[in-house]
Amino acid sequence: MAHSLKILFFLFSTLSIIPLSHQLEQHPLDSLTPNEFIRVQAIVNQSHPTSTTNLTFQYIGLNEPDKQAVLSWLQNHPTTTPPPRQAFVVARINHQTHELIIDFSRDDIVSDRIHHGFGYPSLTFQELIDANQLVLNHAPFLAALNKRGLKLEEVVCGSFTVGWFGETKQNGRVVKIMCYYLDGTVNLYMRPVEAITFTVDLEAMKIIHFQDRLVVPVPKAAGTDYRESKQKPHFGPELKGITVVQPDGPSFTIDGSKVRWANWDFHLSFDARVGPVVSLASIYDTEKQEFRRVMYRGFVSELFVPYMDLTEEWYYRTFFDAGEYGYGLCAVPLEPLRDCPANAVYMGAYVAAQNGMPIEMPNVFCIFERNAGDVMWRHTETMIPPDLITEVRPDMSLVVRMVSTVGNYDYINDWEFKQIGSIKVTVGLTGLLEVRGSKYTHKDQIDEEVYGTLLAENTLGAYHDHFITYHLDLDVDGKVIGRL
Amino acid sequence: MAHSLKILFFLFSTLSIIPLSHQLEQHPLDSLTPNEFIRVQAIVNQSHPTSTTNLTFQYIGLNEPDKQAVLSWLQNHPTTTPPPRQAFVVARINHQTHELIIDFSRDDIVSDRIHHGFGYPSLTFQELIDANQLVLNHAPFLAALNKRGLKLEEVVCGSFTVGWFGETKQNGRVVKIMCYYLDGTVNLYMRPVEAITFTVDLEAMKIIHFQDRLVVPVPKAAGTDYRESKQKPHFGPELKGITVVQPDGPSFTIDGSKVRWANWDFHLSFDARVGPVVSLASIYDTEKQEFRRVMYRGFVSELFVPYMDLTEEWYYRTFFDAGEYGYGLCAVPLEPLRDCPANAVYMGAYVAAQNGMPIEMPNVFCIFERNAGDVMWRHTETMIPPDLITEVRPDMSLVVRMVSTVGNYDYINDWEFKQIGSIKVTVGLTGLLEVRGSKYTHKDQIDEEVYGTLLAENTLGAYHDHFITYHLDLDVDGKVIGRL
Repeated sequence: MAHSLKILFFLFSTLSIIPLSHQLEQHPLDSLTPNEFIRVQAIVNQSHPTSTTNLTFQYIGLNEPDKQAVLSWLQNHPTTTPPPRQAFVVARINHQTHELIIDFSRDDIVSDRIHHGFGYPSLTFQELIDANQLVLNHAPFLAALNKRGLKLEEVVCGSFTVGWFGETKQNGRVVKIMCYYLDGTVNLYMRPVEAITFTVDLEAMKIIHFQDRLVVPVPKAAGTDYRESKQKPHFGPELKGITVVQPDGPSFTIDGSKVRWANWDFHLSFDARVGPVVSLASIYDTEKQEFRRVMYRGFVSELFVPYMDLTEEWYYRTFFDAGEYGYGLCAVPLEPLRDCPANAVYMGAYVAAQNGMPIEMPNVFCIFERNAGDVMWRHTETMIPPDLITEVRPDMSLVVRMVSTVGNYDYINDWEFKQIGSIKVTVGLTGLLEVRGSKYTHKDQIDEEVYGTLLAENTLGAYHDHFITYHLDLDVDGKVIGRL
Repeated sequence: MAHSLKILFFLFSTLSIIPLSHQLEQHPLDSLTPNEFIRVQAIVNQSHPTSTTNLTFQYIGLNEPDKQAVLSWLQNHPTTTPPPRQAFVVARINHQTHELIIDFSRDDIVSDRIHHGFGYPSLTFQELIDANQLVLNHAPFLAALNKRGLKLEEVVCGSFTVGWFGETKQNGRVVKIMCYYLDGTVNLYMRPVEAITFTVDLEAMKIIHFQDRLVVPVPKAAGTDYRESKQKPHFGPELKGITVVQPDGPSFTIDGSKVRWANWDFHLSFDARVGPVVSLASIYDTEKQEFRRVMYRGFVSELFVPYMDLTEEWYYRTFFDAGEYGYGLCAVPLEPLRDCPANAVYMGAYVAAQNGMPIEMPNVFCIFERNAGDVMWRHTETMIPPDLITEVRPDMSLVVRMVSTVGNYDYINDWEFKQIGSIKVTVGLTGLLEVRGSKYTHKDQIDEEVYGTLLAENTLGAYHDHFITYHLDLDVDGKVIGRL
């Protein structure tokens, strides 16, 4: 949820190892390339000049080609041309939401539809940064901080989407802003400045409502910092080094977006909204001597995180982490040797900035072979003397990982390909809990519904759920087609 | 289920690396030592001389000391003496089941109770070997094989416990014997010689019933051999080497039966019936600077495998793999680098033969640190410029593994200790399916209930379940006591 100056770091980063989609021959399902982002920007700007138009790019991604067209192209590859390559764009143009389709072969907009129903496009980092910045100059807020004895320079604010509660007319493109306090910790989430809320109109980029409802103690900083260097006493016994070694290198190959490992082939791309997209996963059948299709396309379609707290500053928290904040947009650079093992290979990706320019996201994926010490299949036969027959096949797999940090929560998103033919999708949820500031310091004081559990003095862990949904277009044993 | 000449290989094996319970100071929960097995044999033989007595040892193990006595000893260790060390013995003595307790400090039998109710002691390997051997000389069986054109030298037979179906009087200590056919495969389970059953009285060691109910084709051998060397075509692409390296050695220590790793301490022992026993697991609290108890004792208490097939040769199959065959007794030597990774350490154990003598079981456990490439906890903080704060704690764990092969099924039994304070218990089920021979060669021919699924010509996968139950005496945050 709460956001974020991350974009700035990405802009200046040069760490990328293997950018996606840089191979010579483009695959129809490849992510947009930097040049394609730039082309989209140019084409849209040409038809809607920024000198006279209020224009922001809320989303730019591949306009997914028709499945049958892709399959047919694959079957006849390389004798046929690929399906037309297009971008799908969601832009705010003079305060209206446009859904545009840009066709690269025609170098033109082929569809421009204005969205009139409920709902707004996903947020850009820039507008979140601007909104968060806005509140720091708001006089009533400065007074509210003063009243609490809080220092402005220790305040960090984040923007929250507001949900929809059955209203019959549009509420405008607004976010609510809540602030946190550092002053002795980097764990801002544990120090909410509770009961102060702003509403910001993103179109006007103005504060349209401010409320200082009541004074709640800010939970104390002590014991909240999670950095290893700050732990006293230090964590338990230091473990000796343990690492994975592949003296002959990895067993997988990456050719642009095409990944091949063991009996698996698949295509990997990246999208600002959904993050990793796995396409055309197929498995080689050694007996039939052909590839058998398993999945046409799979990705996280949404992460819905509703809170069950009815208080004024919490009731609206019903976040769509993919659709509102961007599961891909919130991907963070993976930390070598810690987020992924020593044998991992890293890949970068690109997203569009609010002005349409490509932004490089380094180390957004890691790919590694997992040798967890498990057994795929085994049998010891004791019934046929004089020998024991022992056949053991260790379990190896290939993992594609992305971590998306949507504010306080870090989602570890894995696609794991197993030699037995299964794809295991997992999401690890970690990071920091979202907590509500409270007057209570002991659970025995609580005689009302507080929608949570008192975790520490003045700190309520708020009841909430995380629902993750997947788009899985499975083609198990579908017609065997040309190789990816 | 089906059994087994395994005992012979164990007798001649010399591969054990670290035998359990060889430390100088014995822990009250240590498995019986070879010398203690020999002492038990001597004491029981003295009171029931084998010259005049029909005596078999069906089970010898530690008579578990009283929990409070163990905890109190730990608390005052080393100033108090440990609780009395005793063995628990189940023996058949002149065709009666005795439950004996032998006290080592008194060098005597302190309890000798005859069991009169339903139920029989677990089976010994020797009696299964004898019973399986018996049928190969049975003339009606030789005729039945002849009728089917089967060669005796390719026949392998196994003993099956018979369950209990509400009978009001004892049926005697009997097993049923079913046979399988090799002739071109080592996968005997795929080639049942269906509808021929023996009933063997184990006390008399005599065939008391033989039935050749009908002739069912033996499924063909082709395509059933699971050995890697027999695969044509070979398995999918060969993977390049991948191994786990710990240049400074493992982070755990093993002191007799006491294992220490990271923030965990626990005691590991072995029992013929239940296999691995984890005791006194506790975790070090760096803030309190003391150990906190998590589990007093944990082990697999039973594996119940009932089949849902009402045919004459199958209805009785309701196996108790621990109580009837011995989950520990059926443990197989682990295959280094395949059953466990390169950084594993192996431990042996002992069980009693039917005559009471200790038998060494080499490589019955492996212990290794798992670095699967997972993340225990992470967070990337993007809200506090100018730096990204990224804290990632990789997930490490310690695994204790035993594999028990009860006939066709291999159970991979893991106790995994995690730094977050949890113990993860898993059982992987692998090996070969138990199938019933059938006249059917195509599913369209089936117009009756066959209690299974036709998997190949003449091969029905029989409906069945595997229920595994654990004895878990948890002491989460129990009173902190002396260190293990």
